[in-house]
Amino acid sequence: MSNFNNNIATKFPDLKPRAPSGEALLETERAKTSFDVKALSKFMYTEEWLDRMYKILNIIENDPAFDKTKRYYESRSEKIKSSLWKDRRMTELAREHNWDDQDLQIVNFLFDQSTPFSLHYGMFIPTLRTQTTEEQKKLFLEPALRNEIIGCYAQTELGHGSNVQGIETTATYIPETNEFELHSPTLTASKWWIGGLGKAANHAIVMARLITDGKDYGPHPFCVQIRSMKDHTPLKGVTVGDIGPKFGFNSVDNGFIMFDHYRIPHISFLAKYSQVQPGTGVYNKPPNAKLSYGTMVYVRANIVMGVRYALAKATTIAIRYSTIRQQFVDSVSPKKWNNKVVETPVLDYTMQQYRLLPIVAAAYACFFTGREMLRLYDLNQEAMQKGNFNLLADLHASSSGLKSLTTTMAVESIEDCRRACGGHGYSMFSGLGQFYQDYLPNVTWEGDNYILTQQTARYLLKTFRNVVAGKAEPSEHNHTINYLTQYLQNPNAKCPASKPSDFLNPELILSAFGYRAAYGIAKVAEKIDREGRSWNSMLVEINRISRAHCQYILVRNFIVTLQNDVTLTQPEYKPINNVLKTLAALFSLNTMEKELSEFLLSGYLSSEQCSMLKEQVISLLNAVRPDAVGLVDAFALPDYYLHSALGRYDGRVYETMTKMAELEPLNQTLVVDGYEENIKPFVHQRKTVNKDTATSRL
Amino acid sequence: MSNFNNNIATKFPDLKPRAPSGEALLETERAKTSFDVKALSKFMYTEEWLDRMYKILNIIENDPAFDKTKRYYESRSEKIKSSLWKDRRMTELAREHNWDDQDLQIVNFLFDQSTPFSLHYGMFIPTLRTQTTEEQKKLFLEPALRNEIIGCYAQTELGHGSNVQGIETTATYIPETNEFELHSPTLTASKWWIGGLGKAANHAIVMARLITDGKDYGPHPFCVQIRSMKDHTPLKGVTVGDIGPKFGFNSVDNGFIMFDHYRIPHISFLAKYSQVQPGTGVYNKPPNAKLSYGTMVYVRANIVMGVRYALAKATTIAIRYSTIRQQFVDSVSPKKWNNKVVETPVLDYTMQQYRLLPIVAAAYACFFTGREMLRLYDLNQEAMQKGNFNLLADLHASSSGLKSLTTTMAVESIEDCRRACGGHGYSMFSGLGQFYQDYLPNVTWEGDNYILTQQTARYLLKTFRNVVAGKAEPSEHNHTINYLTQYLQNPNAKCPASKPSDFLNPELILSAFGYRAAYGIAKVAEKIDREGRSWNSMLVEINRISRAHCQYILVRNFIVTLQNDVTLTQPEYKPINNVLKTLAALFSLNTMEKELSEFLLSGYLSSEQCSMLKEQVISLLNAVRPDAVGLVDAFALPDYYLHSALGRYDGRVYETMTKMAELEPLNQTLVVDGYEENIKPFVHQRKTVNKDTATSRL
Repeated sequence: MSNFNNNIATKFPDLKPRAPSGEALLETERAKTSFDVKALSKFMYTEEWLDRMYKILNIIENDPAFDKTKRYYESRSEKIKSSLWKDRRMTELAREHNWDDQDLQIVNFLFDQSTPFSLHYGMFIPTLRTQTTEEQKKLFLEPALRNEIIGCYAQTELGHGSNVQGIETTATYIPETNEFELHSPTLTASKWWIGGLGKAANHAIVMARLITDGKDYGPHPFCVQIRSMKDHTPLKGVTVGDIGPKFGFNSVDNGFIMFDHYRIPHISFLAKYSQVQPGTGVYNKPPNAKLSYGTMVYVRANIVMGVRYALAKATTIAIRYSTIRQQFVDSVSPKKWNNKVVETPVLDYTMQQYRLLPIVAAAYACFFTGREMLRLYDLNQEAMQKGNFNLLADLHASSSGLKSLTTTMAVESIEDCRRACGGHGYSMFSGLGQFYQDYLPNVTWEGDNYILTQQTARYLLKTFRNVVAGKAEPSEHNHTINYLTQYLQNPNAKCPASKPSDFLNPELILSAFGYRAAYGIAKVAEKIDREGRSWNSMLVEINRISRAHCQYILVRNFIVTLQNDVTLTQPEYKPINNVLKTLAALFSLNTMEKELSEFLLSGYLSSEQCSMLKEQVISLLNAVRPDAVGLVDAFALPDYYLHSALGRYDGRVYETMTKMAELEPLNQTLVVDGYEENIKPFVHQRKTVNKDTATSRL
Repeated sequence: MSNFNNNIATKFPDLKPRAPSGEALLETERAKTSFDVKALSKFMYTEEWLDRMYKILNIIENDPAFDKTKRYYESRSEKIKSSLWKDRRMTELAREHNWDDQDLQIVNFLFDQSTPFSLHYGMFIPTLRTQTTEEQKKLFLEPALRNEIIGCYAQTELGHGSNVQGIETTATYIPETNEFELHSPTLTASKWWIGGLGKAANHAIVMARLITDGKDYGPHPFCVQIRSMKDHTPLKGVTVGDIGPKFGFNSVDNGFIMFDHYRIPHISFLAKYSQVQPGTGVYNKPPNAKLSYGTMVYVRANIVMGVRYALAKATTIAIRYSTIRQQFVDSVSPKKWNNKVVETPVLDYTMQQYRLLPIVAAAYACFFTGREMLRLYDLNQEAMQKGNFNLLADLHASSSGLKSLTTTMAVESIEDCRRACGGHGYSMFSGLGQFYQDYLPNVTWEGDNYILTQQTARYLLKTFRNVVAGKAEPSEHNHTINYLTQYLQNPNAKCPASKPSDFLNPELILSAFGYRAAYGIAKVAEKIDREGRSWNSMLVEINRISRAHCQYILVRNFIVTLQNDVTLTQPEYKPINNVLKTLAALFSLNTMEKELSEFLLSGYLSSEQCSMLKEQVISLLNAVRPDAVGLVDAFALPDYYLHSALGRYDGRVYETMTKMAELEPLNQTLVVDGYEENIKPFVHQRKTVNKDTATSRL
C-alpha cells in the first residue's frame, strides 16, 4: 500500500435529497399550527429564561471545548479527556461572563453530557454546604468552590446499593491519635459507581460505618483526601480507579475505592448534625432527620421536570422526522406534491400517531406536575419552618412514586421514539441512541424504581386505614384523602359515560382515576389486613397502586392547571388552552387505555365504554396531528442541544446524515486498518491478481 | 509529571467478598433442583450438538483471535480491526478442523458478535447461490466461497427501507456496449446500512431499478465490483464508506455507496429468474415468486429460535446473579447462613420472581414454537414440491407475526433482566448492555415489527371472512381456522374457571387464547367490513390481533408439545415434564395477565376470575422458584459465550467485576490524560501547593 496516498477522506457528491425536501415539508406542517408557538414557549419557560438560554447558547456553541461534532465518535478515554476540558473551560467562562447557578444549569442542560466534575458540583459541594461545621467549611468547602479540591460522593459499594445501612466500609475512632481509621474489610466493601472518583477527584465524601468506643453507629459521612495535591497520584493506603465501561454515561469516570487501614484526622468527620468528641470518642446523636425529606422532594421534583425535557427531546426528534420520512404511497387517498403522487409522511399513519402523540402529551403532563411539585415543596418548606409537618408525608410519598413512574415512562418513551424513527433511529446521528444510554441510570439511582413504589404504597395504605377509621379529613392539599373518601362513600360507583365524547369531560376523567387508585388500595389493604397476606407476596400489587396513585396526580395536575392557571385562562391564550386541553384528554385517555384492565376489573368501566374510550383516543390523535410540529417546536430545544440529524429545526435530515458520516474516523482513510493482514491474503490468492475481472472498472 | 512512573496499573487487594460467597449460594440453589439438568439440555439441543459445541468451544476460547477479554473496551476502529482478524482466523480454523456449516454456526453463536464478513456469508453467498446462472456461479460464487471476492447485500437506501419498491438507484441497460449504467440520482438514493460494505467488501449485490428500452421494471439484483482487487481502493464512479457509529453493532462496518454513471457488464445482472436479452434489451419476467415465501418462513423460524437464545442468555445472567445479590434483611423471616442473620437474596422477593421467571418460561416457549415452525417449514416445502400450497399462507402469516412478537419480547426481556440486576446491570461487565445494544436491530430488520403485523392481520381477516362464508374447513395444520370456527359456534362463550387452580387446565388456557384472538379479529372485521372504517384508522387494532394470534400459537405449541412429545412422555422424563408444565402455565397465565383487558373486554373473563388468575400466577412463581437456577443451567450456555461477571456458572461475581475493572484502559496509568491541562491548574492555584493539607497522607 506504499504506492498511493491512503489519507483521502470520503466525501459525498453534491446532490439533493428527493423532493419534497425536509424544509418544504416542515414549512407545510408549521403553516397548519393552530396556536402561537412562541407564546407557549414563553408560558412554559418564561421569556427571561429563554433570553438567558439563547445568550448562553451563543457563547458555548462557538467554543471549541463545548463542540459536539466529535461526540458520537470518541473512545472512552477520549470522552474523559474532552470532558475534563469542558469542565475547566466552563469554570473560565463562568468567571468571564459572571454566570450564576441558573446560568450554569443552562450550560449543562445545553451541553447535555455529564462530566467528571458533575458530581463535584452536584453532590460534593452540596453535602459540604449542609453537613459541615464552620471550621470544615473553611477547610473543605471554600477550596472546593475554587476547584482547588475536586470531590465526589462515595456511598454505594460493590455489594450494597439501595440498602445503605448494609455498607461495610468502617471508620474506627482512634482516641490515641485523635484519628479515624478507614478500612475496607472485604472485596464487596469497595466503593463502586462513584462519579468523578475514577480519575478526577482528589477528595471524596466517604460514607462509612462509624465505630467508636467499640460500638457501631452505622453509616456517617467523612471528607477524605484520596489523591496527592502535588501530582494527583493515589495516596498510600488507597486503591482507586475507574470501574470500566458502562451502557452509557461513559464521559464520566465512575470509580471504585478501597481503604487499607487508612488514617484520617478527626476533622474529616462531617460534624454539623452528629459529633464524635475528640479524645473520649463519645458520640452525639443527630437531631430528628425529618427536615431532610424536604430536600428529597426537591430533588425528585427536579427529576420530574427533567423527564419533561427528556420527553420533549425525544418527541422533537421523532415528530419532526416523522413528517419528513415518507413510506409507501397511500393507495386509497394518495398524497400529492406539486401535482405529483408522493409517498405518505409516516406521521399520517394512525399507528405512528398512536406511538408518538401521547408522548408529546406526557411531556406537557410532566411539566405541569413538576411545576406543582416545586410549588408544594415551597409551601411545605414554609410550613415546616412553622413546625407544621401536615404536608410532608403526602408530598414525600407522591414524590417517590412520581420519580419512579415518570423516569420509567421517560426511558420507555425515548426508546419508543427511537424505534418510531425506523432504521435511522439506530444510528447515533439520530441523537436518540446515546441519549437513551445516558438517561437509563435514572431508573436505578436516587432510589430504585421498584423499591420506591413500596414507600408510596406504605403511605397510601396508612392513609386508607386512617380514612376508614375516620382519622383523616379531606383537605385542600391532600388529594389522596379526597379520592379515598369519595371511594368509601360509593365503592360501587360506575363510569357515567354513554358516548365517546363523554370521555372528554375532565370531572369524569378525574373520578375514574381516583376511583381506580382507591379501588386498588382498598383491595391491597383487604388482603394484608384481613387475609393476613405478607408484604412480600403483595409486591406486584403494591407496585400497581403506587402507579395508579401517581397517574392520578399527573392527570389531576394537568387538568386542574388548565382550569385555574391565571395566564392560560386569558382570552388571548384560548388557542393554547384549547390544544393543551386536547393534550390533557389524550394523555389521560391513553393512560386509561394502557391500564384498561384495572378500570375494567373494578367494574367501573363497561366493555361498551372501553370501545368508546378507544374511539375517543383515535379522534384525539386526529385532533392533535395538525399541531404536532408546533407542539414540539414550542419546547424550544435548540439544534445544538438536540445534536440530531433527524430532529433539526430546518428539516435537512439527509444532508446532515451524510455530513456526519463524512466525519466518521473510518472514513478518513480509503483503505481500512487490517486490510493488509486480513483481507489482502484472501483476495490475492486468486491466480490473476493484477488482471482485472470482467466486472472491474479500475 | 516527569519525576514518577505513571505506567502503573491499578490492582485490587487480595480480599474475598463478604460471605456467603456466590459459589456457596449457587451450590445451595443447585441442590434444590427437582430434575436432571443435563437431560433437559440434551432434550433441547441433542447430545450430538452439545458435543460439537464443547469441542468447538475448546478450540476458540484458547485462540487469541477469538479472545473476548478486550471486547468491552475497544473503540470503533479497534472493533472493526479485531473483527477482521476473527474473520480471517475463522477461515483458517475451518480449513484446519474441517468445519461444516453447522460448526460455523456454532462458532458464530459462541463468539456472539457480528463482523464485517457476517453478511458475506449471511446474504451475499446465499443470494449468489439462488439467483445466478451457471456462468455467474463460476464468476462470482466460486471466488466468493474462497473469500477472493468479499461481498455484501445493498438494498436499503438513505430514503427507503421497508418500501423496497420505492428505491431510487437505477440500472439502465445500454445496448450499444451491452452494459448497465448504475446511477444514484439523488442524495437519498445512497445505499445505507449495508453490513460489510463500509470498509470490507470488494463486491456488492446492488438492488437497483432495472430500466431497459425506456421502461422501469422496478428493483432487480446486480453483482457489482466496488473496490480494486489490487489495493482495495474504491473504483472510479463509486463513493463508498462507513455510515458511522450506531447504538450497537459497532463491530460491523455498515456502509453507504453511491454510483455516478457507473458502468457494469451485462453479466452483472443476476439472471436466474429474469433476464435482459443482450443487444435488444428485451426483458423476460420471472416466474411466480410464491416459492420464495418458504425461505422467509425459514429465516423467521430461525429468528424465533434465536429469541430463545436471547432470553436464555439474559435470564441465565439475571437469575444466577439474583441468587447471589442480597438486599435487606427480611424482618419477618430473616434468612440465616451458618446461624448468622444475612440479607435476603433478591430472587426471594416476589417482585423479582415476577420480573424474571416468566422470561425463563418465555425462553422455553420460543424453543417449542421455533422447533414447530421448522417442522412446518419442512412439511410445507415437501407439500409445495408436490404443488400443494395449502399450508403456505397460514405459515407465512404466522411467521411474520411471530417474528414481530418474539423479537419485541426479546428486546424488552433483555432490558428487564438488565434492570433486574440493579446498578451492576448498567456495567458492561454484566454482559447485558452490549447484548441489548447489538440485539436491538432485530425489531427493525427482516421486516419492521409494526409493518409485519399488518401482513398477519390481513391473512387473519381473510380467513375469518372465509370461515364465515363456509369456505374454510377446520384442519389438522390450520389452527387459525379451528379457533375461528369454535368462536363462531359460540361467540358468547365464557371462561369456566371457578377457582385459581382451574387456570392450570391446558384446555381452558387454549380456549381462552383462541377465543380472545377470534373476538379481536371479528371486531376488526366488523369495523372494516360493516362500518367501512379505513385500514389506516384501524392500525392500532390490527397490531393487536396479530399479537393475539401469535400468543395463541406460542401457548399452543408449548402445551401441545408437552402432551405429545415422544421423549417427554417417557416415565424418566416425568420431573422434566412437570417443571415444563409449570412453565407452560406460567408463560400462558402471565401473558394472559399482561393482556388482561382483552380477555375482560370480550366478557370472556369475569373480575373474580381475574383475581383467581393473579393468585395462580403468584403460586406458579413459588413453584418455579426452587428450580430457577436449574432451568437456566439447562440452557447450557458456556461462560465464554455469556462473557458476564454477573452470570458466571461458578458465581464469582465480585471477583470478576474487579478483575475486569483492572483491565479498563484508564486504569493502566496512575494519572489521567488531561490532568496537566485541566486539573492541575485548579489544584495548584492554592498558595501552599507543596505543603500538605490537614487531611493529606502523602
